[in-house]
Amino acid sequence: MTKKLVNDITSRESNYSQWYTDIITKAELIDYTNMKGFFIMRPYAQAIWENIQNIINIQLKKSGHENVSMPLLMPECLLNKEKDHIAGFNPEVAWVTQGGDNILEEKLCIRPTSEALFSQHFSNIIHSWRDLPKLYNQWCSVIRWEKSTRPFLRSREFLWQEGHTVHSSLTEAKEEVFFILNLYENFINKYLAIPTLKGKKTENEKFAGAEETYTIETMMNDGKILQTATSHYFGNNFSKAFDIKFNDKNNKIKYAFQTSWGISTRLIGSMIMVHSDDNGLILPPKIAPIQVIILPLNNSENIIKMAQTVLNTLDKNNIRSQIDINTKQSIGWKYSEYEKKGIPIRIEIGLKEIENNYLSIVTRYSRKKTLASINDIYNIINKELDNIHNNMYNKAFEYLKKNTIYCESISDIKESLNQHIYLIKSMWCGNVNCELTLKNKFYLTSRFIENEYSKEISNKKCIICNEKANYLVNWGISY
Amino acid sequence: MTKKLVNDITSRESNYSQWYTDIITKAELIDYTNMKGFFIMRPYAQAIWENIQNIINIQLKKSGHENVSMPLLMPECLLNKEKDHIAGFNPEVAWVTQGGDNILEEKLCIRPTSEALFSQHFSNIIHSWRDLPKLYNQWCSVIRWEKSTRPFLRSREFLWQEGHTVHSSLTEAKEEVFFILNLYENFINKYLAIPTLKGKKTENEKFAGAEETYTIETMMNDGKILQTATSHYFGNNFSKAFDIKFNDKNNKIKYAFQTSWGISTRLIGSMIMVHSDDNGLILPPKIAPIQVIILPLNNSENIIKMAQTVLNTLDKNNIRSQIDINTKQSIGWKYSEYEKKGIPIRIEIGLKEIENNYLSIVTRYSRKKTLASINDIYNIINKELDNIHNNMYNKAFEYLKKNTIYCESISDIKESLNQHIYLIKSMWCGNVNCELTLKNKFYLTSRFIENEYSKEISNKKCIICNEKANYLVNWGISY
Repeated sequence: MTKKLVNDITSRESNYSQWYTDIITKAELIDYTNMKGFFIMRPYAQAIWENIQNIINIQLKKSGHENVSMPLLMPECLLNKEKDHIAGFNPEVAWVTQGGDNILEEKLCIRPTSEALFSQHFSNIIHSWRDLPKLYNQWCSVIRWEKSTRPFLRSREFLWQEGHTVHSSLTEAKEEVFFILNLYENFINKYLAIPTLKGKKTENEKFAGAEETYTIETMMNDGKILQTATSHYFGNNFSKAFDIKFNDKNNKIKYAFQTSWGISTRLIGSMIMVHSDDNGLILPPKIAPIQVIILPLNNSENIIKMAQTVLNTLDKNNIRSQIDINTKQSIGWKYSEYEKKGIPIRIEIGLKEIENNYLSIVTRYSRKKTLASINDIYNIINKELDNIHNNMYNKAFEYLKKNTIYCESISDIKESLNQHIYLIKSMWCGNVNCELTLKNKFYLTSRFIENEYSKEISNKKCIICNEKANYLVNWGISY
Repeated sequence: MTKKLVNDITSRESNYSQWYTDIITKAELIDYTNMKGFFIMRPYAQAIWENIQNIINIQLKKSGHENVSMPLLMPECLLNKEKDHIAGFNPEVAWVTQGGDNILEEKLCIRPTSEALFSQHFSNIIHSWRDLPKLYNQWCSVIRWEKSTRPFLRSREFLWQEGHTVHSSLTEAKEEVFFILNLYENFINKYLAIPTLKGKKTENEKFAGAEETYTIETMMNDGKILQTATSHYFGNNFSKAFDIKFNDKNNKIKYAFQTSWGISTRLIGSMIMVHSDDNGLILPPKIAPIQVIILPLNNSENIIKMAQTVLNTLDKNNIRSQIDINTKQSIGWKYSEYEKKGIPIRIEIGLKEIENNYLSIVTRYSRKKTLASINDIYNIINKELDNIHNNMYNKAFEYLKKNTIYCESISDIKESLNQHIYLIKSMWCGNVNCELTLKNKFYLTSRFIENEYSKEISNKKCIICNEKANYLVNWGISY
């Protein structure tokens, strides 16, 4: 079972970028369009995204969040209200200038993110402490006119979830920021089987308009880093710009405190690049649209009957299963197809299996084949799905550990990069010039601040300028 | 219980249009924006829409349909490919002419509908009979630059579901068109409690690019008609324009057959205008986000305990229930709030109820209060929700019957309209000039063809020109 079943996928070693493109096209996740940066999410990708949506939706609703739909467009003057926000987003906004036959008096931008729209709405509906908190979320697509694009990782349009909340106090708003950050972390660990790193963004890397940005970062299986989720604390920045005020219990007028946070289809890109191999996609079981594919090796009556029995057992126990009795394609074609599509478990049923009353279980992740008694099939499959999840997580965790290094000097950094170790921890003074030096010299960007030391007790030195350091930072070559 | 609890909603009689606006704002379904025709769907409207989505999604997936996500934008040249399609949509398209700081070489339109995008994708992925059928659907928002706008009914942006399918034969494509039309009809009857009319659109009213359009129409409680769902048969129109061809089983190259179909948030507008009254919204139970609101009349321990017991019983049986122990607002405020929001059943629990071990059940639809034993509460509520659904449907059905008339002459029509009967059945020759005469003289548009008579046996005359008539048509004053 170790031979390469799938020959049309470029190996990672020979060309990582082509490998990624092969996976997303051959597994039928994506189709390209004639417009740069705009991609079609085919049914398989859409089903993965819907599984992600369902899980996140349940968790958000359970914690009191409500979904809304805001407009796709906003007037230029609205985007302009918060000065840092417009400075950050203006260069990458798409503008609508014509509606029907008419040139618009004020051009409208397609939302690159919806802080301005939400804030205007909040200022309409929030008047009293009784109206707070507001815990809103929306699932939608946004447009950012990126220069270089790649499906799931960076595209001009992407699907995401954007949460926007309003609170009566700083404390409550900060609690929300961390509640969501932990919700994201837990989801990425427990459902996508991806180990995570988290921390605070530097001033230079924080969201345009935020006071603080917290991030979850993940390491791809080429050692590079991807920002996978963010949670922002806004303080009163937007509430002052948009006049979001409320009467508190003592009848005093106060500005509200806000947060925003989001995950996007980039999660799918992360999942692909963390787990997949040279035979195609490998999907974590908890998110796979089909967890088990049942494959009768021929269409004789008792084989189909057994396949149906297995399907019913798994189905009844909420294991997402499908039986493939399609006669349009050969068995060889099907093997290759399921391999490419990364379906966690394939159950094969042929004459041998029928005679001996067992099933052949092939695990996509390990590519191992085992035999299983049909009588205990649910327990075996259920346990195997858990095993797969744990093994995938552990493998990625070991990889992350092996490819992270603490550096004490610039020459340490050079050596690490030469060894293709791209996640580098080091001390930093806090000066943006030092931060930019690493970026300009080594393409290393600050991923997040891991630790902040009080100025009194720190005796460490900044790895760039050798001045007193107050921060332990994770730097990385990022996507 | 017949007094008016809610004083801030204009009565239908005094101003129907203001009544509608009051309902959607006071029930917190909608907030307005500074952009004409762009509205915010607040949590309550969004929850109704998500209930609609969930039910339709389950039915579509069960019948083999798959969700996808197509781009928001398309190049002008793509929209231009099918000549009738572009002629129909071009006047109401929004154009993106600028991305970031750059003026685009070819302007992009925001999808008003996605036939062109789907067709281009289909031509990429369909090659053989093995690739067919493709049964695709997407949930998204579309933009149409309408001149006069109204939330849910006609807006520049609206949320919808658009299905697009490809088939190897005319027969199979037509089956799909009717399968979906019936699915819509069943949904509107059984979940929204709205009686429906259905039939084929005239040539003049069919979808731009379609060979045939089938429609579901519903009557609002002012007697006017709303087009509520459509299902289109395209034949080879788009497959020829976009080169969607396949090798059939005999290795002959053929053009594929296509359909498209959709429902939108307009369903919510229909639901409001069919069912609601001068006290606010009345939601059909099967779609209401909260089916039962449990209201403790004070916060004493045994009252709260009983309320909690009732909630647990209903919750366990999948009745969407909430308990309101919020102390921010008064009981009077809450009564008015639930009334306005159209929650089907309110359960009141006070000292009297505790002493006598019964609950007070108030039905929003009939505004009747009854007493119910706590021991049998699930069965009583479950049955009452069914009753409410049936009564709402029957009331709307009676109204529809009473406000439909068969006319034999133009003077019949005049009299009907004077009596505010707006749905008029009459014979028609099939000539578009006659159709337009009714539109220009009486604002009556052809809603659909109810029956088509073979030319041989028809001895009826067209109500307009008095020539031989081949069609029984439903005409209406429409939204």
